Amino acid sequence: MSAPAAGGSGEDSLIARYFKPLAVEPGAFGLDDDAAILKAHGDDTVVTTDAIIEGVHFLPDDPPDTIARKALRVNLSDLAAKGAVPAGFVLTLALRSADEAWLTPFARGLGEDAGLFGCPLLGGDTVSTPGPLMISITALGRVPPGKMVHRSGARPGDRVVVTGTIGDAALGLDILKSGAAATALADDTAARALLVGRYRIPQPRTPLAGAVRDHARAAMDVSDGLAGDLAKLCAASGVSAVIDTLSIPLSRGVAGLLARGAVGIESIISGGDDYEILCAIPEDRAEAFALEARLAGVAATSIGIVIAGSAAPRFLDGQGGEIALARLSYSHF
Amino acid sequence: MSAPAAGGSGEDSLIARYFKPLAVEPGAFGLDDDAAILKAHGDDTVVTTDAIIEGVHFLPDDPPDTIARKALRVNLSDLAAKGAVPAGFVLTLALRSADEAWLTPFARGLGEDAGLFGCPLLGGDTVSTPGPLMISITALGRVPPGKMVHRSGARPGDRVVVTGTIGDAALGLDILKSGAAATALADDTAARALLVGRYRIPQPRTPLAGAVRDHARAAMDVSDGLAGDLAKLCAASGVSAVIDTLSIPLSRGVAGLLARGAVGIESIISGGDDYEILCAIPEDRAEAFALEARLAGVAATSIGIVIAGSAAPRFLDGQGGEIALARLSYSHF
Repeated sequence: MSAPAAGGSGEDSLIARYFKPLAVEPGAFGLDDDAAILKAHGDDTVVTTDAIIEGVHFLPDDPPDTIARKALRVNLSDLAAKGAVPAGFVLTLALRSADEAWLTPFARGLGEDAGLFGCPLLGGDTVSTPGPLMISITALGRVPPGKMVHRSGARPGDRVVVTGTIGDAALGLDILKSGAAATALADDTAARALLVGRYRIPQPRTPLAGAVRDHARAAMDVSDGLAGDLAKLCAASGVSAVIDTLSIPLSRGVAGLLARGAVGIESIISGGDDYEILCAIPEDRAEAFALEARLAGVAATSIGIVIAGSAAPRFLDGQGGEIALARLSYSHF
Repeated sequence: MSAPAAGGSGEDSLIARYFKPLAVEPGAFGLDDDAAILKAHGDDTVVTTDAIIEGVHFLPDDPPDTIARKALRVNLSDLAAKGAVPAGFVLTLALRSADEAWLTPFARGLGEDAGLFGCPLLGGDTVSTPGPLMISITALGRVPPGKMVHRSGARPGDRVVVTGTIGDAALGLDILKSGAAATALADDTAARALLVGRYRIPQPRTPLAGAVRDHARAAMDVSDGLAGDLAKLCAASGVSAVIDTLSIPLSRGVAGLLARGAVGIESIISGGDDYEILCAIPEDRAEAFALEARLAGVAATSIGIVIAGSAAPRFLDGQGGEIALARLSYSHF
């Protein structure tokens, strides 16, 4: 990114108008240079990247400010799950045209979230595309040396803990696509709005990064579905797990849909876009983690236990029977 | 990115098969985690990001290995111009399908260049798109604290120096599009191949990063056209420049086309995709810079001088007259 110069182009004007005001970090050099500087201050730099594409991760008529927030937040969610504090991000924006009515709220939402989560814009690239909008963000965070929390590290006996509630976003998307959830919640505007909001604007658990770093033996964010992501965490750790499905935290709307049989548990635990933290907490750290989560205002629920073995995690129903899952998570290919 | 787990998806398999072999850096954790670690070792981390899109930055039938190389090299070019040594990169790959015949050479080219330039894959995101292929790379580099070379900093009296040759890539693209250059070079297969190669596979000036850091007062890479990029460097530095157009280094093919009147000087100095380094070198450093460039095997040519003022840089012809430029550089919007 660069600001306009003599011979400034449309691209430069676009960047100067919409994104230069977001480049408040000294190392961003006001987007006037070809690169940014990040000082590590002795910490390790944590690097993560996630892209969202129109028609795949968001819908063409989603509000532009929510698209911007989602693009940044899915990356902040990864940083939080790794125990990292945000340091800044770079943005690649592929646009069909420089549409002011879209760019103005997009940049506003992005700037507000950058401020809210302390993750300033460092730089980026704005390119034209004949295809769908795409926003790719690389977020950088900091952890003390050697302290990034990995997927591996879970041990038998650890509690399986998940933040927030599970399944909201997948059902929010179902509502936007006029699926079964939309019909079942036809009379409940508030529940519909909550679920759609959870799809459009994930809530990265940034305030919990320190507690994850201090107490979790393994962690990742739940982005492709709880069942599949837990399977990945277990495989990386060389362990298995048993989950008490009745303990999985559900929002009022999702619990109601499940109770009425409008949706099955499978679509809840294999749906994507939760952006909650899934972690393995040693028993003797469980109380401290729960306390820090309460202080951070984030719900953290123990949903099962890590066990020895290499089998896929089992999800038990109320009678101790195992729920068969045909699909564990979302896959792009 | 993550490797396959119990419940591994097509996306996981794709990453494991094509990209995990490239993740040789310990901080990449074999792509088995949600983020990578970069250790700064006391240096500043330089961050740059550039995306390339099918039909915009490369052609649908360009060989996949050259697309991969270009995606990485345009970022390495930015690092070199900032005086930074490559440290690693993250990749976002938006694909219509997991096509083995395309992915195999793509990953091979990417891996070979990652090794060649010492810039290992740290992580990434692979997503499906209904639209054109897009490759977005964020590259990270290292410079000693405070030593990144900026666009600003050029002072009157500095020499304007450019590496390599200018205009090759723009004419290479013209050849691929069966433009005037293709007709003019119909009988010269070697010249056509050289120009097309320069479009498809830029040559980042990584070996010159140290010399730029040690001697240049200002630098940037020439990606959108020499004229426009020089205007940006001058504007950032608060100076102007006078360029002796006859001094601009041209390859044999381009010089021939210009001599025969098949192309004009304007298309050469306002064409994009050169990926050469443009820098301002103080007179008393010029000899040292030239020596280091020779030792690095990179041509470095003095093409003019920085002067005081805020006017756009002037390009003089052989008679001292000014060349009028209608267009300075490529713009996406």
